[in-house]
Amino acid sequence: MSFTRLQEKIDELKNPAVVGLDPDLAHIPEEILEKHYENLGENLEAAALAVLEFNAGLIDAICDIVPAVKPQSAYYEMLGPYGVIALKKTCEYAGKKGMYVILDGKRNDIGSTAAAYSAAYLGSVRIGGKEYAPFDADALTVNAYLGSDGIKPFIETAIKYDKAVFALVRTSNPSAGELQDKMIGNEKLFTLVGDLIEEISKDTIDKYGYTRVGAVVGATYPKEAEFLRKRLKHTFFLVPGYGAQGGSAEEAAYAFDKDGRGAIVNSSRGIIAAWKKRGGDYAAAAREEAIKMRDELQKAVY
Amino acid sequence: MSFTRLQEKIDELKNPAVVGLDPDLAHIPEEILEKHYENLGENLEAAALAVLEFNAGLIDAICDIVPAVKPQSAYYEMLGPYGVIALKKTCEYAGKKGMYVILDGKRNDIGSTAAAYSAAYLGSVRIGGKEYAPFDADALTVNAYLGSDGIKPFIETAIKYDKAVFALVRTSNPSAGELQDKMIGNEKLFTLVGDLIEEISKDTIDKYGYTRVGAVVGATYPKEAEFLRKRLKHTFFLVPGYGAQGGSAEEAAYAFDKDGRGAIVNSSRGIIAAWKKRGGDYAAAAREEAIKMRDELQKAVY
Repeated sequence: MSFTRLQEKIDELKNPAVVGLDPDLAHIPEEILEKHYENLGENLEAAALAVLEFNAGLIDAICDIVPAVKPQSAYYEMLGPYGVIALKKTCEYAGKKGMYVILDGKRNDIGSTAAAYSAAYLGSVRIGGKEYAPFDADALTVNAYLGSDGIKPFIETAIKYDKAVFALVRTSNPSAGELQDKMIGNEKLFTLVGDLIEEISKDTIDKYGYTRVGAVVGATYPKEAEFLRKRLKHTFFLVPGYGAQGGSAEEAAYAFDKDGRGAIVNSSRGIIAAWKKRGGDYAAAAREEAIKMRDELQKAVY
Repeated sequence: MSFTRLQEKIDELKNPAVVGLDPDLAHIPEEILEKHYENLGENLEAAALAVLEFNAGLIDAICDIVPAVKPQSAYYEMLGPYGVIALKKTCEYAGKKGMYVILDGKRNDIGSTAAAYSAAYLGSVRIGGKEYAPFDADALTVNAYLGSDGIKPFIETAIKYDKAVFALVRTSNPSAGELQDKMIGNEKLFTLVGDLIEEISKDTIDKYGYTRVGAVVGATYPKEAEFLRKRLKHTFFLVPGYGAQGGSAEEAAYAFDKDGRGAIVNSSRGIIAAWKKRGGDYAAAAREEAIKMRDELQKAVY
C-alpha cells in the first residue's frame, strides 16, 4: 500500500514504529527450535517452521500497538526455499493481522529484471490465463546505485498495485559514509541519491504530501537525517539504527516533519530478542519492549 | 569457487563467456509451459517446473562449450518459493555438469545481515548439529553502495568456502552514469567503488593475480572498461551488456588483460531466446548462438 495507508495506521496507533523481523536462529527460543527439530530432524525445513512460529507469536503480541513489520529477506533466504516459504507466510500473516509489511530485500537491477523483482514483491505475475501475487508486500526496500532506470520499474509497479518502495539514501552502518558522504560539487552523494528519488517520483505525491518512493535514512546519523528531512519535503523516511545499533528516539526524531509525520523508525533485535535480556516469554518481552519504544518515540516525536 | 577455477575453466574451453539464465516465461517455448500447465494447472509451481526443464535443456546444450552460467535471481523470485526451488536446482544441476555458477542477486546489506546473505548463497548454515549449504553458488553479485562493512562479510565467507563475489562498479544500463559517473575530486564515483573493492580484497589475490572480489563492468561502456582494466590490476571483471543490450565482442574485449585473461562476458536472452529468431529447437538454437559468441570472443580477445 502507499504511504497514505501507512501514515493512517501510524496515526491510529500513535506509534511511528516498525518491528524488524530478522529471525536469526540465535534469536529464537530453544524450545521452539527443538520442537521442530524433534518433528522433522535438524534441517532447513524445521528451522523455517520455527521461524514462522516465532514470527507469528511476535505478530500476535504486537499487532495492536505497532503499525508495521519489516521482514529482512536475508534471514529467510539463508534457510533456502523453505525459508522463502516462511517469508511469504510471514508477509501474509502480518497482512491478515492488519500490519503494513515492508519487505527489506534491498533489491536492485535494470529494466525487465527490475520489473521482475517488483512483480515478485509488490505486484503480480501472469501464468497462462491466471494472475498470482507471489509475496504481496506493501513496500520493498531497493538500492539506487544503478540510477533511475533501476528504480522506475519499481515505481510503475507501485503505482499499478498501490504499493511503495524505500530507496537506500543514507544508511546506518559505520562505513556508510565511505561512498555515501563523498562530495560531488557542493553536495554529498547521498544528497544526490535523495534528490534523484524525489525527482523521479514527483508525480506520485499522496494526500499527506509523500511520493511512493521513500528513503532509508539511518537514526545513527541524526545530522544527516535533519539535513535530508529539510531537503526532501515529499519523501517518507524509513529509519533504521534505533536501539541495538545505538540510535535513540531523540536522534530518530530528526527524520520527522514538524507535525510528527513522514517517517517510521525500525527496531529489530531490540524487540524480537528482548526475551534474552528481560527473560520470560519471548512474545511478552517483545510486547513490553515495543510499548517502551512507542512511548519513547511519542515523547520525542509528537 | 575462487576465480582461479573459473579462469582454468575458461582456458580449458577457450571461451570467456557466461550464459545468463534469465528465464522470463516469454523466453520459454509454449510446449514446455503447456505440458506443465496441463499437469498441474496454470500456477506458479507449474511455471517453476517449466523454468527448470528449460534451464536443464540449456545447460545440457552448452556445458561442453561454455564455462559458466549466471542465473538471474529476479526471474526465479517472481515465481515465489517454487521459483526459488527452481533456482536452487538450477545451481545444483549446472554445478553437476561442471559449470561455474554465478548467482546474480546483487545482494547488499550490513554486518550480520550481509553475513546471512553470504551464508545463503556461498556458504552454509548451522541447524542444530548439522550444516547445510542452501544454494552453494560459486560466486554472487553484490552492490557496494553501503561501503566496506557491507562487503567484508561476503569476502569472509568467500575465503572460508573458496568462493567469490562480483561487486557492481560500472553497470551496463542507459542511466548507469547518473550516479556512477559523478565526479568526486578528480575521479568518478565508479572508480572509487573499484578502488574500494580492490583495496579491501587485496589479501585474497590468487595465482593468476585476481582477488576474490570481482567487478561488474558493462560492455556497453568500452571507454570505462578500458580505464578500469588499467586501474584495477587484480580485479576479475564480469561484463554484462553483450548481444541483446548492444555490446559487441570488440567492446567487451577492453575488459580483458593483455594475455586475454581476467574477464568473463555475459549474454542472456541473446542465447536463451535464440530460438525465437533462429527457429527450431530452443536448446540447439542456444548452442549455435553460444558457439557464435565464443568464436567472436576468441577473435576479439585472444
